[in-house]
Formats: sequence, C-alpha cells, structure tokens
Amino acid sequence: MNIESLLQLIAEFLGTYFLVFAGCGAIMVDIDKNNPMGGTGVAIVWGAARMVMVYTIGHISGAHINPAVTIAFASSTSFPWKEVPGYVIVQILASTLASGTLRLVFNGRHDHFVGNIPPGYDIQSLVMEIIITFYLMFVIMAVITDDRATRQLAGVAIGSTVLLNAMFAGPISKASMNPARSIGPALVWNKYTGLWVYILGPTVGAIGGAWAYNTVRLTDKPLNITKGT
Amino acid sequence: MNIESLLQLIAEFLGTYFLVFAGCGAIMVDIDKNNPMGGTGVAIVWGAARMVMVYTIGHISGAHINPAVTIAFASSTSFPWKEVPGYVIVQILASTLASGTLRLVFNGRHDHFVGNIPPGYDIQSLVMEIIITFYLMFVIMAVITDDRATRQLAGVAIGSTVLLNAMFAGPISKASMNPARSIGPALVWNKYTGLWVYILGPTVGAIGGAWAYNTVRLTDKPLNITKGT
Amino acid sequence: MNIESLLQLIAEFLGTYFLVFAGCGAIMVDIDKNNPMGGTGVAIVWGAARMVMVYTIGHISGAHINPAVTIAFASSTSFPWKEVPGYVIVQILASTLASGTLRLVFNGRHDHFVGNIPPGYDIQSLVMEIIITFYLMFVIMAVITDDRATRQLAGVAIGSTVLLNAMFAGPISKASMNPARSIGPALVWNKYTGLWVYILGPTVGAIGGAWAYNTVRLTDKPLNITKGT
Amino acid sequence: MNIESLLQLIAEFLGTYFLVFAGCGAIMVDIDKNNPMGGTGVAIVWGAARMVMVYTIGHISGAHINPAVTIAFASSTSFPWKEVPGYVIVQILASTLASGTLRLVFNGRHDHFVGNIPPGYDIQSLVMEIIITFYLMFVIMAVITDDRATRQLAGVAIGSTVLLNAMFAGPISKASMNPARSIGPALVWNKYTGLWVYILGPTVGAIGGAWAYNTVRLTDKPLNITKGT
Repeated sequence: MNIESLLQLIAEFLGTYFLVFAGCGAIMVDIDKNNPMGGTGVAIVWGAARMVMVYTIGHISGAHINPAVTIAFASSTSFPWKEVPGYVIVQILASTLASGTLRLVFNGRHDHFVGNIPPGYDIQSLVMEIIITFYLMFVIMAVITDDRATRQLAGVAIGSTVLLNAMFAGPISKASMNPARSIGPALVWNKYTGLWVYILGPTVGAIGGAWAYNTVRLTDKPLNITKGT
Repeated sequence: MNIESLLQLIAEFLGTYFLVFAGCGAIMVDIDKNNPMGGTGVAIVWGAARMVMVYTIGHISGAHINPAVTIAFASSTSFPWKEVPGYVIVQILASTLASGTLRLVFNGRHDHFVGNIPPGYDIQSLVMEIIITFYLMFVIMAVITDDRATRQLAGVAIGSTVLLNAMFAGPISKASMNPARSIGPALVWNKYTGLWVYILGPTVGAIGGAWAYNTVRLTDKPLNITKGT
Repeated sequence: MNIESLLQLIAEFLGTYFLVFAGCGAIMVDIDKNNPMGGTGVAIVWGAARMVMVYTIGHISGAHINPAVTIAFASSTSFPWKEVPGYVIVQILASTLASGTLRLVFNGRHDHFVGNIPPGYDIQSLVMEIIITFYLMFVIMAVITDDRATRQLAGVAIGSTVLLNAMFAGPISKASMNPARSIGPALVWNKYTGLWVYILGPTVGAIGGAWAYNTVRLTDKPLNITKGT
Repeated sequence: MNIESLLQLIAEFLGTYFLVFAGCGAIMVDIDKNNPMGGTGVAIVWGAARMVMVYTIGHISGAHINPAVTIAFASSTSFPWKEVPGYVIVQILASTLASGTLRLVFNGRHDHFVGNIPPGYDIQSLVMEIIITFYLMFVIMAVITDDRATRQLAGVAIGSTVLLNAMFAGPISKASMNPARSIGPALVWNKYTGLWVYILGPTVGAIGGAWAYNTVRLTDKPLNITKGT
C-alpha cells in the first residue's frame, strides 16, 4: 500500500467518524433531553456533516464515508474495485468507534440505542431505503463526476439531499442510506434486528442511482475519477 | 426523436418524481405523525429538493420539473415550443407515479390526500399562486438566462425561492407554483376540487415573471438557451 | 432619465415589493394562524428573500432594496447621490404597495398590522437597529465592493446576516434594518408610533458600517461601483 | 506595528464582537422570552455569524475570531507566532465588550448569564470540546489552506461545522469551541466556574485538528498562509 492510499483511508476514517459521531450524537441528545431538536434538527446535523466532509476530504479520498457509495462508484466509474475493501472496512470501523465514543460519553441511564430498526414492516423500510439512496447516488454522480455540473456546489447538493431524505423518510425507514452508519451502533449495542434492510437497501439503491445517472449522461468519453472530487 | 431529447425527458421524469415524492412525502408524514415537521420542515424539503435537482439535471434538461416553467421558457426564450408537450406530459406522468408510490407506501389509515385544495376563496389562492410563481420565474430567468448573474448559485436561489414561497404562502394558497405537482395527486386520489387554480395561476404567473425579467434585462443580444443550464 | 436608470428603478421596485410581500406576509400568516412558523421561520423568509434578490437583480440595480443601504453606498462609494432620491422613493412605494396587497388579501378579521413598533424603550430599539444595520452594511461593503472577497457568495452572506439579525434582535427591536420596510406598513395602517426609530437607526447604522469597512479595507484604489453587483 | 497589522486587529475585533454579540444575544433572548428559538435557533445564529465573518473579513485578517484557531494556525502553518498575542488579546477584548453591551441592553431582571458552565462533569465537557474543536479546525485547515479544496465555499463549510457542533454538543458541553467566547461573559458576570474547560479544551482540540489535517494533506510544498483567506 502506498502512502497516498493510506492517507485516503485515514481521511475516510476521520470523515465517517465525524458523520456518525455528530449525527448519532444528535439522535442521542434528542432522545435524552426530550426532543429539543426534533426530526428537523437531527436531519440538519446529518446533512450539514455530510456537506462539510465533501469540502474537507473530498479532494483527498472522495468523501464517500459510506460503503454503498464506494461500491456504487466502483460499479459505475473508474474507481478501482481493489480499493473497495479498504474503504468499506475503514468506514465501518470509524462508525463503530464513533458509536462507542458516544456510548462512553452518555453512560448509564443516558445510554440510548442510536442504530436503525425498521419502524414498520421491513419491506416498507427496504423500499424507502432503496429509493432515497438511489436519488442520493444519482445526485452524487451528477455533481462529482459530470464536468458540466457546478462542481463547487457539490457539497451543498449532496448534503441537502441527505437532509431532505432524512426529514421525509426518517419517520418511515429511519433514512440510513449508509450501511456503515447502521452497522456501527448495531455492533456497539449488539442489536441486529432488521439490520439487513440497511445493508441491502442502500447498496442496491446506490448502484441503481449510479447506473441511472450514467444512462442520462450521454457521453462517449470514459469516466475517470480516481478517488477524489 | 433523437437520443438527446429522450435523455432530457428521462431527466425531467426523474427530477419531477423526486420533487413530488419527497415534497408530498413530507406532507404525508407530517399529517400522519401529528406535525413533527410543521410547515417550515415541509417547506425545507420542497426547497431543498428543487435546489438539488438544478445541480443534478440542470445541465441535461434544464431542470424545469414544472410545466409552468417549461411554458414560460418557451414563451420568452429560444426554448422550442415543439419540446413543450413532451416535457409537460413527462412532468405530469412523473408526479402521478410519485403520488401513486406514496399512496402504496402509506396504505390503509395512513393514506392522506397530498394534493392542493384552496384553503379559502379560490380567487385568493389564484392571486397568491400568480404572485409567487411570477417571482419564482423572475428569479429563474435571472439566474439561468442572464450571463451577468452568478450562475453557480442558481440552484440555491431557485430552491430558496421555493422554500420561502412555501413558508409564507403555504397557509394561504398551498403554494403549489407547479401544475404537475397538483395534477399528480389529483389523479391518484381522484379529487379535482379547485384544481383549475393550480393550473391557471402558476402558468399565468410564470409567463408574467419571464416577461418581466426580459423587460428589465435590457440587452440586444438574442437569448439562446437550448434546454439546459 | 435614460433607459438604464429606469430599468434599475423597476428592478428595485420588484425587489423591494417581493422582500416586503414575503417577509411581512410571513409575519401576518404567523399571527393569523397562531405562530406556525415562529420567529425562526419568519427570519428564514426575510433572509432568503434578501439573498434571492441579490442574485436576481444585483447585476441590474445593485439590489439595495433598502434606503439605508442606498444612502450608505452614496456616502462611501462612487454610487451617485443624484440617483438616491429615485431609489428611495421607489423602495418606499414598493413597500407601501406590497403592504397594501397583503392588507387586501388578508381582509377583515385576518387583518394584522405588520409594521414595526419598538417592543420596549425607544432608545433600546434605536441602539439595536444601529448595531445590526452597522453590521449588515459592513458585510455588504465587503462582499459587494471588495475585489478580494468571494463575490459569488455575496447573496448568501448578506441574506444570512439579515436572517441572524432578525433572529436574535427581532424580539428586542423588531430588526427592521430598513426604513422602507417600516414606512410601507405605517402608511397603509396609518400607524406611526416610534417610526422615527426605524428611519434614524438603520440610516445611521448603515453609514457607520460602510465607513468602518472603508477604514479596514486599506486600499489606495478609488472604489468604483456604479450601481450593480 | 505597521498599518496592515493594525487593520487586521481592527477586523478581528469587529468580527469577534459581532459573533459574540449575535450568538450570546440569541442565548439571552431565548432565556428571556421562554425559548422562542430553542437550541436549533441559537445554533443557526452562531453558525451564520461565523460564516458571514469568513466572507467579510477573511481576506483581511483570516477571520479567526477565536484564540484557539489563531494558536492552531501558528502551530501548523506559516502564521507568525509574534502576531498571536495581538490577535488573542483583541479577540478576548471584543468578546468582553460584546458581553458588556448585551448586559447593558438587557439590564435588570432580563439580565441572564450567557457564559459557559459545564452542564455535567467537567471531564465530559472537556472531552466534547476537544473533539468538536478538533473537527472545526480540521475543516478550517482544509478549506482555507489547501489549494485543492473549494475555497469559495470555505465560509459555508466552517459556519455549518459551528452550526452542527452547537446543535448536537450544545446540551452536553455548551459547544463553546472558542476561549474568547467563554472568557468575555465570564469577566463581565464575574463567574469563572469551569472556565478552564473552555480554555484548555478548544486549544488542545484545535491544535490536534490542524496537525491531523497536515498529516492527511500529503504535500511537499511549504504552507504559506500569511493571514487571510
């Protein structure tokens, strides 16, 4: 492994840690203090954290911070498959450590599970996760890989998609869109109910969204994103 | 039909589907769960979805995702009238399918009508729809067709206009600004009360807004936007 | 008067009309429906409308839409004093007509005064209006007249300043920052209590803010903004 | 001291004064009026004020407006150590005067302490302040000092980090991230309980965040930011 790849993994680690620490921290505080933020406040934290990381590590690692995004990029662009395992492992590791940090900080009776369990039927959450991650990846493909798009606003567009998906889909499916975000707390609290929904749904949705964008893109030029914004 | 036009229609379909699925989904969740988001939260979802689509498909189809915008562009710029029927049909189709998806996901006693019925007198809603769509199109004309404007922030400006219009005009007229957004749920729930307000108002307003911007623009150069940001 | 000056006045009219119609409309709806938006929602409408107008008419008229800003520009940059009366009259006219439209739309028992009356001591509101308009104009001078600033984000910076000032100073002084915004409703409802606060305060504050920015600017080059972003 | 350095200190003074006046003003209003804004509203004010100052004085003084940021820059970039004392003194002075202004404006029974006291164990707040300031500085280093980052969105990224940190960490540690912001009110109200947490935590966190970004940056070129965006 060369030094560049190592730094990319460190960047993905720091980015995913921040996303999960802030987003799940917001959920925990909201439960603990009787909903001072509500769903809107929690969604703002997730969306803002996602946006900030695009501008902070996008030029280093691509700011995937989400295994579904990494796999979808590999399936549809020149992002190399051999980099996928490293990215995914680091993303899950970061999410687990961020969840663990939160559990330590909020110990005792302030300890609330911040993972994802489908609120209704599994199939309902699965469909919703597929649709919202489809659109998240559709947006990412446009603003990150298409030269005609407004690259500077990429972070705003991606973060806003996370924000709005979390707002309207949160009450239905928990709006994970990210297997690492769901696996981390599952491991720390040892709760795996319905976890498969948050692994399968986002991955299928992201691959579909990337494929859909490539369909409407209409270009003959090969795509060449070698990790990075 | 050439391949480029087909891809534009697919992009308009995906964009309108997302706008209506997210925006009407937010309304449905808000009714179903006793207003966790409120009008502000619902407006944020509509505004953010509108903004995101400008950055995602603006460079492909122009990201109209609204028949009133398509008609106003044709009436005031070089956007060709012969493209209008295809755009409008696809926008209405996408809105209808998005509404249908929502009705399937929220079946049974969670099934709430998400279309637009004037809350007060029809004429009051009509006037409000005309004014707010006038300004929405005035903004779109400036940021999309005027070289002097800050093109990169086009999505932020357009999305913010939808957001603020939805916030202050929502309680008065429902703030549709978009015939497709109103027709889709009307077809799915088979409720047409006052629907004419949301077809006539936005269309008249958008044409007026485009005309007004062309008036203050002061330029001798012919406008040449052939679909696309 | 040449055609360019006329178009600038039309742009200022449309911009100020939108600002007051949306912002005061939000206040009226909020009173009428028992605070569905609250102060935060109302502030978002004011801030977003201010931002949107920078991107929509900034390149035509400078998007002052505020007599205090126009006077401060004339006092500190090359904006010509002879243009000031036209700008100010049109801004006040637009605010008055926007207020009148709102009063017509919300007739009868939904008719609520949306002008500004100091909530506490006049002097307290006066001090607050001076400080917040000082900073608003300080920001405007930086992002509009300084080549080193990020011009593209000008609208976001100006709109956000209006938003945050409205949020924290609203309960103390009503956070007008704009004589036209206060004079319009005063004329329509014939209520002039404490109106002088909202004419004197913002004007003094804006002149001070422009002077302060010119002090820290440190440049030998003459400033040359001839109306327009 | 040359004129350029003096103007930088004036800019830092005005920027820090605005940040503390607006942010602590929001806290005071929120306490005084029984939480019309809530934590989300207060966080929006802090984040927006931070963002606005990046665009307003970033090109003059760098818009640190935070001693921890100034010290972290000196420890990791070419920002000169000999400028640090002046910056830090001016930042603390501005925060103290802003706090004093607020205390005068809200006199008598509206007088509420707006400084930071750890809500729980000191160690819990200390850990949280270290983590959130680590990430704030990590973001600042990326968007301000790395040529590959989207410089134009620097203010949005930095302001959004303050916003989201304030939202999720506010109930746990008060989310100061800024020794000057905490010292000012402490001096004005003469309350020093737990103040050391807000001096040590942010400083350690910011130095760590700057060091972490330099680690993942991977560049051979010397960093050369001589005050300024």
